[in-house]
Amino acid sequence: MNIDQALQEVDKLLKQVVTSDVDVLREASQHILTGGGKRYRPRLTLLAYLAAGGTDLMQAVPVAAAVELVHTATLVHDDINDHGSLRRGRPTVNAVYGRTLALLTGDFLFTKVYELMAPFKELNPEFAAATVALVEGETLQAAAAKNNTLDRETYGRIIAKKTAVLFAMAAKVGGMIAGAREADADALYNYGFNAGLAFQIVDDILDIIADSEKLGKTAGLDISQGRGLVTALAHTTNGHTTAGGAPVAVIEAEADPMDAFKQRMLSGGYIEEGRKQARDLADMAKQTLESFPASPAIAELSAFADSCVERDH
Amino acid sequence: MNIDQALQEVDKLLKQVVTSDVDVLREASQHILTGGGKRYRPRLTLLAYLAAGGTDLMQAVPVAAAVELVHTATLVHDDINDHGSLRRGRPTVNAVYGRTLALLTGDFLFTKVYELMAPFKELNPEFAAATVALVEGETLQAAAAKNNTLDRETYGRIIAKKTAVLFAMAAKVGGMIAGAREADADALYNYGFNAGLAFQIVDDILDIIADSEKLGKTAGLDISQGRGLVTALAHTTNGHTTAGGAPVAVIEAEADPMDAFKQRMLSGGYIEEGRKQARDLADMAKQTLESFPASPAIAELSAFADSCVERDH
Repeated sequence: MNIDQALQEVDKLLKQVVTSDVDVLREASQHILTGGGKRYRPRLTLLAYLAAGGTDLMQAVPVAAAVELVHTATLVHDDINDHGSLRRGRPTVNAVYGRTLALLTGDFLFTKVYELMAPFKELNPEFAAATVALVEGETLQAAAAKNNTLDRETYGRIIAKKTAVLFAMAAKVGGMIAGAREADADALYNYGFNAGLAFQIVDDILDIIADSEKLGKTAGLDISQGRGLVTALAHTTNGHTTAGGAPVAVIEAEADPMDAFKQRMLSGGYIEEGRKQARDLADMAKQTLESFPASPAIAELSAFADSCVERDH
Repeated sequence: MNIDQALQEVDKLLKQVVTSDVDVLREASQHILTGGGKRYRPRLTLLAYLAAGGTDLMQAVPVAAAVELVHTATLVHDDINDHGSLRRGRPTVNAVYGRTLALLTGDFLFTKVYELMAPFKELNPEFAAATVALVEGETLQAAAAKNNTLDRETYGRIIAKKTAVLFAMAAKVGGMIAGAREADADALYNYGFNAGLAFQIVDDILDIIADSEKLGKTAGLDISQGRGLVTALAHTTNGHTTAGGAPVAVIEAEADPMDAFKQRMLSGGYIEEGRKQARDLADMAKQTLESFPASPAIAELSAFADSCVERDH
């Protein structure tokens, strides 16, 4: 069984695990789960499993599925809070089923994580810690957007908690199922953490430069809601300057604030700066892998770190 | 240590476990957790622990706290969906912090359940199953209210899933920590299930007859939203009649629909019918306890079943 076959098993399991005698929960869950996510996180779990010497990918499939469920539950709740209408190329759960059922569907997916993970006793603390961080990251982001306090430091805290910790955990638990030594599990965690930071920075850049069709979700949401990389790079408080040295005015509402934002970011070189940071983080992730003996799986993890940066959707 | 002292430890732990470097999550969590809930569910866990022969209540405290957290997380999300403004005698989390942060606070509390329970490996499947049922029950309720399809059968399904299963689990896990035999753990489950049904029926009755001040939450919400016992008792489809034999008209919007509802329920004897059902269920719960040798804890569980029925708030 190769990684792509294992990912098909992940998808099969995801579809199975959300069965319920309450039809609408099953339907709404399958609506989001079959919407063609890119499955970065479960792929990471499977690759880390192989890298740490695992030989039966089916062992890692339920855990990889649980990792994807954590992510998906968060997406469903995010789309409520952001009033997103497009996700994974489809209408969001809240757009189709309304906010109340979307809230319950997100809760349902969270409880199914718990169900899937119940047999994997030693992994539960890892899942708990990552899920707590994720909710904290989303909260920091919501609070910063609401209070217009998104600066570079806060942006770093947010993407660490809301994205990097889940990538890190996804890799670490893959290693743990394969029986990795603690030092190796920690190395996989650090690898995933840096790859996750790179992934999120690129995600925020794509939110600026891509259009909704290519992205499969409502593009520009982050900008219009005062969140994300752009705001963080552009935001100055008390005369602080950005890395480029030039003070940047606090963004004010304009006729078409999104276009103005994009123009400013593109012309100010901030996109390039973000891409360079992401590239550096991916390289750091790859360096972490040097403590492992060379193997096809390690090579794939290395390529995975590159793919977090070199993507256009 | 007696039960009330153990419940104080539960409260202390609840306050500790929701610490976070994200201030607003901690504040919102403590806002709802210190709002003076009646702690029925953790009390049940502690009593069941003693009834099954447990001797060190501190063993059961983290599990009792996790049970209360599951319940509290659901309350926070319920209040978003119901637009409730009063809970446990205080403004709801959504009223104070807004819907977005209330949603994230509920998620945070759910993840803290996971964190608290990580060391209790064999209990995780019980928690997962109960939490899934809870979300299913809430979803059935939301769907029935939306589609105006609340009849007696659906009402029974809803209160089983959204309330009785959590009471049942609370009692069962209390027994399990004390090392109860499987038959005893199952008996505690059945006890909790029937006590939980009784509790919810009385809760729905109180929603009709009590006022907000006494109840500490927005009274009449269930009625105005087409949910709960009243609607179930009053709802007829295709000429079905209620237990009393007289056909009851489908409720229509009136000048003050709540007053009209109350009047109809009070005069139709439905309140008395509900109270009788609750009494029968509490008696069934007490009968389940007869398989245990007499003890002070069993006597307290028996009194607990009565208290689910004989309460005015």
